[in-house]
Order: sequence, then structure tokens, then C-alpha cells
Amino acid sequence: MIKVVLIGAGNVGVNLYKALSNAQGVKLTQWYNRSAINQDDFPITVPTTTQLDAIVTADVYLISVADSAIVSISKALENKEGMIAHTAGSVNIECLKNHHNFGVFYPLQTFSKQKEMDFKTIPLCIEANTSENLALLKSVAAALGGPIHLIDSAQRKALHLAAVFVNNFTNHLYRVGEELCKEHQLPFSILQPLIHETAEKIKSLSPSQAQTGPAIRGDQSVIDDHLQHLTQQSHQQLYTLISAAIQKHG
Amino acid sequence: MIKVVLIGAGNVGVNLYKALSNAQGVKLTQWYNRSAINQDDFPITVPTTTQLDAIVTADVYLISVADSAIVSISKALENKEGMIAHTAGSVNIECLKNHHNFGVFYPLQTFSKQKEMDFKTIPLCIEANTSENLALLKSVAAALGGPIHLIDSAQRKALHLAAVFVNNFTNHLYRVGEELCKEHQLPFSILQPLIHETAEKIKSLSPSQAQTGPAIRGDQSVIDDHLQHLTQQSHQQLYTLISAAIQKHG
Repeated sequence: MIKVVLIGAGNVGVNLYKALSNAQGVKLTQWYNRSAINQDDFPITVPTTTQLDAIVTADVYLISVADSAIVSISKALENKEGMIAHTAGSVNIECLKNHHNFGVFYPLQTFSKQKEMDFKTIPLCIEANTSENLALLKSVAAALGGPIHLIDSAQRKALHLAAVFVNNFTNHLYRVGEELCKEHQLPFSILQPLIHETAEKIKSLSPSQAQTGPAIRGDQSVIDDHLQHLTQQSHQQLYTLISAAIQKHG
Repeated sequence: MIKVVLIGAGNVGVNLYKALSNAQGVKLTQWYNRSAINQDDFPITVPTTTQLDAIVTADVYLISVADSAIVSISKALENKEGMIAHTAGSVNIECLKNHHNFGVFYPLQTFSKQKEMDFKTIPLCIEANTSENLALLKSVAAALGGPIHLIDSAQRKALHLAAVFVNNFTNHLYRVGEELCKEHQLPFSILQPLIHETAEKIKSLSPSQAQTGPAIRGDQSVIDDHLQHLTQQSHQQLYTLISAAIQKHG
């Protein structure tokens, strides 16, 4: 049984806690956070601590903290022989090389504390400094049941960047849609079937095949009309730039 | 039984054909298109024609053609007493006022000929020149089984604009994600669980509540790092503009 200590109780940490504490094949032995974890939100069935020097011995230490805090946590655990792995998209594996056994365990998904995610659908991107450590991380990932990908740090940075486009930036476009609805006394929910279908469509067509709309059609009269009807300058700028990008790609 | 003639066999027209020919409460009596409709793609169970002067008498004529062709179709049907309604998002109802009975029947969804859509999930936005005509269009919409919204031309234009943001522009962001994956020998499918969850999340949270990522966190070191790693200028421009828009809205 692989013993795991989880470090951090942010959005990713809380979701990893819920998944690991229910997983077969791994034993979550402790959960650290710098401040006390609220016991009221969901049942906590493993020992918790707020003291770094109280962290117990384990096979794997999963560090799920803010990017800027990873190195200091890694230093605080320098006396541990077990494997240390962070869960960040854009942090190079090399930042953990003060350890003998280190790696990355990056779940490619957007997390919030309020919504429990099913790890069986979440791609786990793993990387390690040796093939033995990679095998160990693979076993932890396998216990969560989702697809496993061997991804190096350069690829992981590209994935994190792509995730910013398809998640953070897409969400901002949803927000623009919501603002346009509000301006005209329309419920945002009227757009949700379209938003759902847009995300579904690229399971069977590539995004370049799925592209529709006035920009790809070169329908300048609709484009001009739309720009006239946008009242916010930031909406106009987005409209102009994304339309030009669509037309450039063709 | 409401008799309907469908005009046009584009993406919307083909989907309306499939839905109307199976609907209870309306009878699709004829399908017109300027060129012959390919009978091999799916079974066609109603009479078709390519001649405008062969169009039969009906209660409702649904015009599902390119925006720029609506007026000429409307003129060609000037001798018809039945109601004429177009299906376009951004065309004002007034363009049909050469008729006594006119309206708009706008399904808010993205359509392709290859994929049959379930109209029970598609919001139908209707508008008409009289309350009697509105009631008639409402009956046609009800036969398709989805949610019905009374939407005036100004609101519909706003919806069409919002649809460009959440559908066309979002799809372009998916394309950027696909390009970043290809550059690093990664399968685009690895992003699909994230794309799906991004679209799901805004069913329970508003987009402003759901916003995450380096821009909203004000994490300038990640932003700078991302910009350095984007090799295409158009990707850099999008990254900069959308990040600024996210930060402006806060």
C-alpha cells in the first residue's frame, strides 16, 4: 500500500483529498495545510496538521500549494527520503531537485472547493526523475482511475498555456455573453444550450472544421453591424482581434 | 393542423426539416431549395421543389436562407396570404413588412448538416407583427418541444452577438489550444475534459464567479512566462488582450 501525505488544501488539494481518501491501492496518511482545515465543510477521515515539522514519513508527498510556495515546502521536507511531487501546471520539475526522489503529478482540470470532481475523467500528467519514481507516481495516478499521460515539463507548460486559452479565456467570453444578455434584459441561461453544443462539437470535429460565423464566412456587413452594436470598448477590441485571428487562420 | 412550407436547405434548414417532418401538430407540406436537395443523405418524405413559383399555399413559410437572400425570397412570396417568417439571428423583422403576416423564428443553436440536433433542448426565439401571428408561431415552436422565448429584434441581435462570442470565438480559443498541443506533440483530446467542465461550470456559477487563472489572480510572473512561450504573434495578442479584459472586469 503506497503511503501518501497531501500538502495543501486549496482547490486542487481539497479535490485530491476527496479522491485519495476514497482510493484503493493508496493510503492517505496525513493532510497538511498552513492554516487549520475547516472540518465543517466535509468529513475529514485522516489526521491533519498545520506544522511542517509534524509531517510523517510516507512514500509520496504531494505538494498542492501556490506555485510560489512550492520551493519553500520542498526545502522544509529536505530530510524526507520519500518521493516529493508537485501538482502545478507551469512549474518545472527541476525546482524539486534538492531531493533524491521527485516528480510532478498534474491533474489537467479546473477545480473548485464547492464541486467534487470525478478523477476517473481527469487526465493525470506525470513526470519523475527516475523510472522507478515514474512507476511509483503511475501507481498513485492509477488508484484515481483516470487516463495517465507521461508529460515532460516543456509539454506540461504548453498544456497549462492551452488550458488558459480553453478554460480561463473561454470563461471570459462566456462573461461577455452574460453582459450582452444583461444589457438587453435576457437570461444568460438562454445561451447555455449553445455553449454546451460548442464544447460537444469538438469531440467529433476538429476546432478548425467546426469554425462558423461571420468572420470565417468573411461577412463584413454582419461584422460591421456587430461592432456598431457593441457598447463596451473592451468587447469591440475582443471582437476585432478574434475575428481577424479567425480570418488569418482561414 | 398548421401547414408549413420550409424554404432553404442549409445547416439550419436541414435541421428544421428533420425536426418539422417528425413533429406533431404541424404538417410540413413542401421543402424548397434553389438547387436540388440531395436525396441520398437522409430520407426526404415531403415534396421538394427548386421553383419559387411552384411553392404551395401554407399557413407559415419558414425562410431559412442566407441573410442577404431573405428579402428577395420575401418578395417572390409577396402574393402569399400565409405568414412569412425568417430564422436569422441578426436580421430585423421589418425586412418582411411587405407582407401582412410576418415574424421571426430563430433557433439559438449552432447547426451542421452532419449532426442532427434535438430541438427539445434548443431555445426558440419568436417575434411577430401581430398577437395572432405570434400565437401561430408559438404553436409551430411548441410542436418542436423546446423552450420558447418572446424576443424582439433588438434583443435577438444582442443574442446573435453573444452567440458569436460564446460559440464562434470560443471555438477559435479551442483552435489555439489545439495548435499549442500540436506544437508539443500532445493529443488535443487531453484538453476535452477541461473544455467540457468549463462549459458545465457556468450552469451552477455565473462566469464572473467561475473565473480563475493567472490574469484574475494578478500573477504577473506566470503571465510573463506564458507570453515568452507563445511562438505565434496572434496567440500573444489574444493572450494580452483577454488577460487585460479579465483584469479590468476584476
